[in-house]
Amino acid sequence: MTLKVYCDRMSQPSRAILIFCKMNGIDFEEITINILKGEQHTPEYKAINPMSQVPMIVDGDFTLFERFLLFLYLLEFSHSILIYLCCKYPRVASHWYPSDLVERAKVHSVLDWHHANLRRGSVGVIVNNVLLPLNGVPSNPQLAEEAEKTLEKALTVLETFWLKDGPFLAGRSQPSIADLNLVSEVMELELLSEELHDRILSPYKKVLQWVEDTKSATAPHFEEIHGVLFKTRKEFRELMAAKSGKTE
Amino acid sequence: MTLKVYCDRMSQPSRAILIFCKMNGIDFEEITINILKGEQHTPEYKAINPMSQVPMIVDGDFTLFERFLLFLYLLEFSHSILIYLCCKYPRVASHWYPSDLVERAKVHSVLDWHHANLRRGSVGVIVNNVLLPLNGVPSNPQLAEEAEKTLEKALTVLETFWLKDGPFLAGRSQPSIADLNLVSEVMELELLSEELHDRILSPYKKVLQWVEDTKSATAPHFEEIHGVLFKTRKEFRELMAAKSGKTE
Repeated sequence: MTLKVYCDRMSQPSRAILIFCKMNGIDFEEITINILKGEQHTPEYKAINPMSQVPMIVDGDFTLFERFLLFLYLLEFSHSILIYLCCKYPRVASHWYPSDLVERAKVHSVLDWHHANLRRGSVGVIVNNVLLPLNGVPSNPQLAEEAEKTLEKALTVLETFWLKDGPFLAGRSQPSIADLNLVSEVMELELLSEELHDRILSPYKKVLQWVEDTKSATAPHFEEIHGVLFKTRKEFRELMAAKSGKTE
Repeated sequence: MTLKVYCDRMSQPSRAILIFCKMNGIDFEEITINILKGEQHTPEYKAINPMSQVPMIVDGDFTLFERFLLFLYLLEFSHSILIYLCCKYPRVASHWYPSDLVERAKVHSVLDWHHANLRRGSVGVIVNNVLLPLNGVPSNPQLAEEAEKTLEKALTVLETFWLKDGPFLAGRSQPSIADLNLVSEVMELELLSEELHDRILSPYKKVLQWVEDTKSATAPHFEEIHGVLFKTRKEFRELMAAKSGKTE
């Protein structure tokens, strides 16, 4: 039974899982759940995932003592999903999730750090600068400023700590699932206006290089999976430009 | 070389690690870094941990190809630390971190969920209702309300989802490192006033039972390690009572 990946390429953890499966030749079925259209709230989806989030994987597996369905859900669970896939499929190259305890602990540390730092900053900045304005909801300047500070602090830690000792996170020479997850998060910032995107990211030279290195290491799947994001970026920027034109 | 645990028993992840080491007979040296006194910001501590957080472990290990120091830091890293210790010490009972892929994925899922849900709610409620008032800083009612909502939502998910299928998280019959971490988080709410503590927690019968079950399963270490918290709770409640007396 083929692995089913319920996802939306507009969601950063969904992209990480799709790139990972393609990079490692894992046979899977991609089932799109369009978040912007609210498809995660349909009764059909809720029946299998009461938390209404993507990505989720369903793995019907006959190798275990009984047929089971494995549900891993919520945005935050892309880490668990990737770890599960690394351990389940022997063909996955070891650099994605090293078996050495210390190296593995480093990867776990980056993933742990991600939740309350880079993700929190990135999501906050996008909500306040893109999603709320596009939906005609006034953004709270205090919350927008706090989100930007959280993001800048996270980018500084990425630049000066996690990327201090090597091209990939935690001093590694090849990408791990942490790189894939965190680069997908940084890519979400493409949805910002070009001016804001560049103002926020340009001081972080190592971060920018690391994004490029991860792109190269996962070509051609990276560009392909990010196609929807680039298309949406164009639409969002046009909408934002039209909106700011109106208010002038 | 003995494992060194840099910690503060007032920090919930520190307590989880200490209880875990004692439960599993792991030989370690406890080095207290008093957070309330700001000892995590001393030059000596920063020299080994530039992020100024506890807990941290330092494991000088001769079994690897060279002597190394492993630093795992930041509050969020207690998950990584516990996983590392589970894998490193063969004597650790398997229920703490199951080797079965699906069972392990469930534990990872709970840990992933913890960061942006239970932890965020719990920390926000304590900061707004205890730490800010005790330091004479006016609490922002909007932020306090949001934190309480986040916490209540997290407790509801604990009650109706994570504790749906068994006495321990994710339907397990024995505690895992996820139970230890999340119960330590819930215990932090002891710092609230008795009235607020009971108002928030009393609707969650399964959560309360699970806390008791985890306490029993980790006796006598649970009570011993939480001794500092209980002492501080008494002091905080007296201080808060004195403060509210003044303003009447």
